[in-house]
Amino acid sequence: MVFEKGKSCRFVYFCGNDNRNKMKTIFEHRSIRKFSNRKVEESVIERLAEAAGRASTVGNMQLYSFVLTSDEQMLKKLSPLHFGQVERMNAPLVATVCCDVHRFSRWCEASGATPSYENPLWFVNSAIDASLAAQNMILEAEHLGLGICILGTTLYTAEQISELLELPKGVIPLTTIVIGYPDENPPLVERLPSTSFIHRERYEDYSDEKVREIWSEKESMDYVKRLVEENGTRNLAEVFTLKRYNAEDNATYSAKYLAALEKQGFFKSSKSDK
Amino acid sequence: MVFEKGKSCRFVYFCGNDNRNKMKTIFEHRSIRKFSNRKVEESVIERLAEAAGRASTVGNMQLYSFVLTSDEQMLKKLSPLHFGQVERMNAPLVATVCCDVHRFSRWCEASGATPSYENPLWFVNSAIDASLAAQNMILEAEHLGLGICILGTTLYTAEQISELLELPKGVIPLTTIVIGYPDENPPLVERLPSTSFIHRERYEDYSDEKVREIWSEKESMDYVKRLVEENGTRNLAEVFTLKRYNAEDNATYSAKYLAALEKQGFFKSSKSDK
Repeated sequence: MVFEKGKSCRFVYFCGNDNRNKMKTIFEHRSIRKFSNRKVEESVIERLAEAAGRASTVGNMQLYSFVLTSDEQMLKKLSPLHFGQVERMNAPLVATVCCDVHRFSRWCEASGATPSYENPLWFVNSAIDASLAAQNMILEAEHLGLGICILGTTLYTAEQISELLELPKGVIPLTTIVIGYPDENPPLVERLPSTSFIHRERYEDYSDEKVREIWSEKESMDYVKRLVEENGTRNLAEVFTLKRYNAEDNATYSAKYLAALEKQGFFKSSKSDK
Repeated sequence: MVFEKGKSCRFVYFCGNDNRNKMKTIFEHRSIRKFSNRKVEESVIERLAEAAGRASTVGNMQLYSFVLTSDEQMLKKLSPLHFGQVERMNAPLVATVCCDVHRFSRWCEASGATPSYENPLWFVNSAIDASLAAQNMILEAEHLGLGICILGTTLYTAEQISELLELPKGVIPLTTIVIGYPDENPPLVERLPSTSFIHRERYEDYSDEKVREIWSEKESMDYVKRLVEENGTRNLAEVFTLKRYNAEDNATYSAKYLAALEKQGFFKSSKSDK
């Protein structure tokens, strides 16, 4: 391969004496919601798994499992648990990212030791572990030319997903990554100014004026204005609070996820230990 | 800059016609626990913040805040809340990664809308958001030549950290990233075989034999054998269950984190909505 000056922007990003350029894969992330028919190769799946495994993990315990769905029948069964998104996206591969204290506990038991990780503390530890690993998998996928989309619906139907994927106690779905070769090329989505979520030394609380300013650029965008109009709300905040994530749904799904946590055994050690 | 064939291994990783090489930063991650006196530049901090902001986020809500500690006095106050680790590592910069539904809620209120995100569902949503953003920050830091270490102690002292950093309700510490220029070059740490945490179509449970096999390579390592001997336990599993993360600590810290969640208001909407 010959380096052609000014032609290869990948070269500009990653190589050269100044190695302090931006990490292209991070800064070019966009969610993909339409996938081509191309299957994800087994060698790619292996690579994604390896990448996930390299993330930081509490006590090197790796408290996560990824249940991969690529079988057509299983994709059809999984899709309604994500309100049809899997089929609508034509997803070839779905990774259900699970908190998993079960594998570690099984190893303890098989070693004659007594584990006590089925409690809220270790749910949170495993949620961090699983999410860090998930982000590695996402970035490696994007680095390899694939696209991804995260399905937040995972928390709404965790109990049913657990049943479908036959998750034992100590394992619960946390999030889901749809993975495949993109069949669309959407623009970058806007984000809040990074200064708005960075605090120095102490948390600097937000005045009404400040918080309105933070969202002002977003609110001035055409697609946001359309969204507000289509939803018949007064503003973007109401699109969230009255429609997309409203109080009734929040209460319902919050109770449901707590019930799923209970059913999957994540309050076991905390009760018996008290 | 001239490309010198065979010399720049960074070129091999990132450029060329085959763009399907491994993402070097992911696969070379190691935790750094000793930092040089070099300060982290403001331009670098800005970059890390931007990278964090590019991660996937539920409903584009960005439910996280990073409270950065670099002031010498604040580092000294923060260190005991991480059992002395911050000072021992000579850390120049500490990012306390927080779940944050407060900023979004403040914006809703300032817009005349009524938010209902102070409940367990949205704690979990924000924990995923915060962790994905944190992993972006970590990888961008490592890409820029910095090193990081995650402090799991964050969950043990979340209430005290909240007080020190003046976190309002709707904000709670989740994890902590120590960031700086490395003053050590440790080897890669071993991980479980990636096949052990990847399941196809359904969760394949672990037999005693299988789970012992998964850990067998780790258990055969010299440093692990020393660890077992130093702790006076029968095996590695007991180092975890009797020493490092024992039942009593797990119960204590689980209750403490739940109390911190309650104090920071994360059960508010779930109660009032029922």
